[in-house]
Amino acid sequence: MSDYTAPVEDMRFALRELAGLDEIAALPGYEDASPDVVDAVLSEAARLASEVLASLNSVGDREASVLENGIVRTPRGFREAYARFVEGGWGSLPFDPDHGGQGLPWTLAVTVQEMWNSANLSFALAPLLTQGAVELLQTHGSPAQKATYLPKLIAGTWSGTMNLTEPQAGSDVGALKTRAVRDGDRYRITGQKIFVTWGEHDCAHNVVHMVLARTPGAPDGTRGISLFIVPKVLVMDDGTLGPRNDLRCVSLEQKLGIHASPTCVMAYGDSGGAEGYLVGEENRGMEYMFTMMNNARLSVGVQGLAIGERAYQRARAFANERVQGRAIGSRGGPGVAIAEHPDVRRMLMTMKANTEAARALAYCAAAALDRAKRHPDKAERAKAQARIDLLTPVVKAWATDCGCETASLGVQIHGGMGFIEETGAAQYYRDARILPIYEGTNGIQALDLLTRKLLRDWGAAAKAMIGEMQETLALIGGEDATGPIAAAAAQASGTLAEVTDWLLEAGARDLRRAAAGASPYLRLFGYVAGGWLMARAAAAARRRLTGGPQTGHASRGFLEAKIATARFYADNILPRAAAEAAAVTRGADSTLAFDSTQF
Amino acid sequence: MSDYTAPVEDMRFALRELAGLDEIAALPGYEDASPDVVDAVLSEAARLASEVLASLNSVGDREASVLENGIVRTPRGFREAYARFVEGGWGSLPFDPDHGGQGLPWTLAVTVQEMWNSANLSFALAPLLTQGAVELLQTHGSPAQKATYLPKLIAGTWSGTMNLTEPQAGSDVGALKTRAVRDGDRYRITGQKIFVTWGEHDCAHNVVHMVLARTPGAPDGTRGISLFIVPKVLVMDDGTLGPRNDLRCVSLEQKLGIHASPTCVMAYGDSGGAEGYLVGEENRGMEYMFTMMNNARLSVGVQGLAIGERAYQRARAFANERVQGRAIGSRGGPGVAIAEHPDVRRMLMTMKANTEAARALAYCAAAALDRAKRHPDKAERAKAQARIDLLTPVVKAWATDCGCETASLGVQIHGGMGFIEETGAAQYYRDARILPIYEGTNGIQALDLLTRKLLRDWGAAAKAMIGEMQETLALIGGEDATGPIAAAAAQASGTLAEVTDWLLEAGARDLRRAAAGASPYLRLFGYVAGGWLMARAAAAARRRLTGGPQTGHASRGFLEAKIATARFYADNILPRAAAEAAAVTRGADSTLAFDSTQF
Repeated sequence: MSDYTAPVEDMRFALRELAGLDEIAALPGYEDASPDVVDAVLSEAARLASEVLASLNSVGDREASVLENGIVRTPRGFREAYARFVEGGWGSLPFDPDHGGQGLPWTLAVTVQEMWNSANLSFALAPLLTQGAVELLQTHGSPAQKATYLPKLIAGTWSGTMNLTEPQAGSDVGALKTRAVRDGDRYRITGQKIFVTWGEHDCAHNVVHMVLARTPGAPDGTRGISLFIVPKVLVMDDGTLGPRNDLRCVSLEQKLGIHASPTCVMAYGDSGGAEGYLVGEENRGMEYMFTMMNNARLSVGVQGLAIGERAYQRARAFANERVQGRAIGSRGGPGVAIAEHPDVRRMLMTMKANTEAARALAYCAAAALDRAKRHPDKAERAKAQARIDLLTPVVKAWATDCGCETASLGVQIHGGMGFIEETGAAQYYRDARILPIYEGTNGIQALDLLTRKLLRDWGAAAKAMIGEMQETLALIGGEDATGPIAAAAAQASGTLAEVTDWLLEAGARDLRRAAAGASPYLRLFGYVAGGWLMARAAAAARRRLTGGPQTGHASRGFLEAKIATARFYADNILPRAAAEAAAVTRGADSTLAFDSTQF
Repeated sequence: MSDYTAPVEDMRFALRELAGLDEIAALPGYEDASPDVVDAVLSEAARLASEVLASLNSVGDREASVLENGIVRTPRGFREAYARFVEGGWGSLPFDPDHGGQGLPWTLAVTVQEMWNSANLSFALAPLLTQGAVELLQTHGSPAQKATYLPKLIAGTWSGTMNLTEPQAGSDVGALKTRAVRDGDRYRITGQKIFVTWGEHDCAHNVVHMVLARTPGAPDGTRGISLFIVPKVLVMDDGTLGPRNDLRCVSLEQKLGIHASPTCVMAYGDSGGAEGYLVGEENRGMEYMFTMMNNARLSVGVQGLAIGERAYQRARAFANERVQGRAIGSRGGPGVAIAEHPDVRRMLMTMKANTEAARALAYCAAAALDRAKRHPDKAERAKAQARIDLLTPVVKAWATDCGCETASLGVQIHGGMGFIEETGAAQYYRDARILPIYEGTNGIQALDLLTRKLLRDWGAAAKAMIGEMQETLALIGGEDATGPIAAAAAQASGTLAEVTDWLLEAGARDLRRAAAGASPYLRLFGYVAGGWLMARAAAAARRRLTGGPQTGHASRGFLEAKIATARFYADNILPRAAAEAAAVTRGADSTLAFDSTQF
């Protein structure tokens, strides 16, 4: 039994009406993404997600991946599911056809990724990490490295990992100590890494580790870090697998959630040094790793909305089935489903509105990625690159915060049953909690937004986006229901513009003061961008309802619900923007006024 | 090793400066609560909490209570800890000296309760439920029932429970089906109850169940429910324990958190009917149970701030120890503790400010309870009763929401380590999640606030409290730091007044529309009340710092920190009040506009 159905109607709507999929499909190299292909991809992916992956989700939670004699055994059914995933070529969607990829847009890949993550967050991490390794090698690998690793990684018969963290070096990656010593045309890697997601498992034939390490005499900090390919099984010159490399999984972490995803402590070089192969040049590893991380950050944002969608679907089913109490205001009468109670309805609406807004933003970010890669016009590429750079931390942090809030509301709607593990709502709550932490904590995302995205270009990219919001919002509305929605979003975008100016000025004078407002600023940005997209969604729905140009096959009911959801967002969620704004402009000084001895 | 130290300085400050403990101690019957006694109680309780209960908290989480052959075995150390708790007479603090109680104020009892809950939420539930049973029997029991049960329950050698929920009757208690059939001077009880906290265990000699059941021919719904005492072991006429009653624990729930607290499925009457003794009159059980529930609701609110305090202490310790990165803006230089990073500081401040505000409100609510019980003036008693009635749902729901937010921030501050169970932060996050659910979900609290507290007296109690806020705030401030704090709180109280009027009007016309805003209204009330009390706290701290009348021994550092925390609250947390206000007044219609088929 599956309790997840991919929300294909909303996905298609967001793709076409907000992310501009038709325009993306017209970019050179993306010609294959015809409407037919897109529909076929979405419906096939939806089937795999709901029929295979979703039902393994609770099995994975209960059984967890376990380490036995150096081997990590994934929960029952995961190997078979992974094999089907590989067989379907699902990992190859957005990659270079030269190495076996399907060359489809990222926008579509991200949509499909949402399905894997809704169905089974733990499972979806394996291809997510592999995707990062592929991106990294596509961009920075040598031709020989590409030839050796890319076809297998893209196919998924081998999986990829990211090895950054060490016990003393978490968010401060520059403090890492793993050593890499040159040995002929390769390096010997020695050291221990923690938090290596899917670092060891029984689903793929090889695990290709991307490892950050320091060569002798390298500068301190992030400028002295190099990146190495360190495969679990050595690859012979003819491409066949040879002996095991000198690395092993020492232990698995016992975690709050995502139990089926093995989080490994990896030991390199216990017997003299693991073989590693330098990617690019020495000391440029952090720069390369960011290729992988930016990509992964967008995907983690997608995980946030994906877990929200799953939690919403379960809560909705429960609320429609569970009969408790009578309609409010009536003393007698028959019992009603709790979805009829206004407060439960408010929670369901919050879940739905948050998730749809986050979906819209994530898909739009992916569309910017596609334009940045493929647009024939250089200036358009640069503009799109600035947009995706700006949005990556917002999507990562805001959508994962939304995911946690949504999963928590899902528990609440279940009442006492929500606290019982068997019900399943608690798993989403536990699983979701990693999302604001990994791939750079949400606090790190906020600092990234402030320092690298806002202060570095003097707010140009942010102001361009706010300007675009205000232009499009000015065109919406009038007499009907979408008018007030657009007006609320326009007002909130004005607040965002003011706070952006405040932050630019504060940042120029005192970075610390600006940094104290970084997190609320990111949330403000997220709420406002979400409000903008929901207003656009409402306007598009209205256009379709009133017989404007048809660009899809959304049902009347769906379109009416979209307008109602956008209105709920404008009235109930968007007002949070002002609270976040106050926390930036009024709150910075009071955050810093406190002496650390006073805690 | 303990990682919890009772925040005695802040507790004393809140008791004296905000809850008015000195005035409470002057009420007839509370003469024993002299400053010396209070200090002794606080410091002895602090010792037991930190030395015994706190260190059992993670043991309890890992081992959990288990059911074996009908016996529930609590985790290692719990029996001994319970024995020490009983030995110290800790359960008897606020109860009637006629039955072995110490007759101390509830205000003090609640403070001590906070310590138990910070130290070990699972453990603290045992005396919390017993306290409810005591309150119930003190108020509604017959003289014989009091004589038989109260001394043992007050001593803690027997524990008490609450049996309300059945699978089909959760929040809708009126739908319960457990039967009670008269049999001479007693009743035979048959049925199954779920979610019975500490329903069976190995710490006390007897478990006294308070069971809601329906007699034959009783009216439908809540008006046909009676309340019975159903002891696990029958009590002989001479007060000694006799044979086992016909009831047993069938299974324990596997829960997200509070693993050491056994949540029992209880079967009554498998062998013909459990002996039960009617409390009061037939069909008035719900009314009696509310005596217990109101009391328990205040205590659950205290649990919310207690888990917040514990999570804060752990996060603070981690943030002060963990060195990652350099001071912001400096590229080189030594590593700094993460507590120095503005964003981590913001999270710590949010945890601290939320917890202190919730503490202040909970203690003030307890003080109202004491005044309602003991004030010599009838009008004052009625006023105090209206206040505690009003505040009970606010404390329950708002403080538990704060607790969840605080526990989640605690996880976030730990970064990747926060997601690892061994660290401990995840336990608080899991444990806290029950608090917005049990003793009436927070949605039920919001409806209680709206319908029973606001609409029933036409807002009189709420307006009296808002008026008091505005009067006291008008007296604070001037040139110094407390001025803007009081101004922000005054402005927020104005918003609360307006939204209260809106809700009264809306409720009179269309209860459903008002109910759609009940939850955000409750949160609005909580934020504003918290802001008011933090402003009063800041003013009191300033008075002490500037050499006004000394009423305690708070340190200079503590008082300065209090002002800084109040300022943080005013600038960063209080702005949320406006967002909640908008969700009430603008958000109600958009919550209801949605058709349930549209979900």
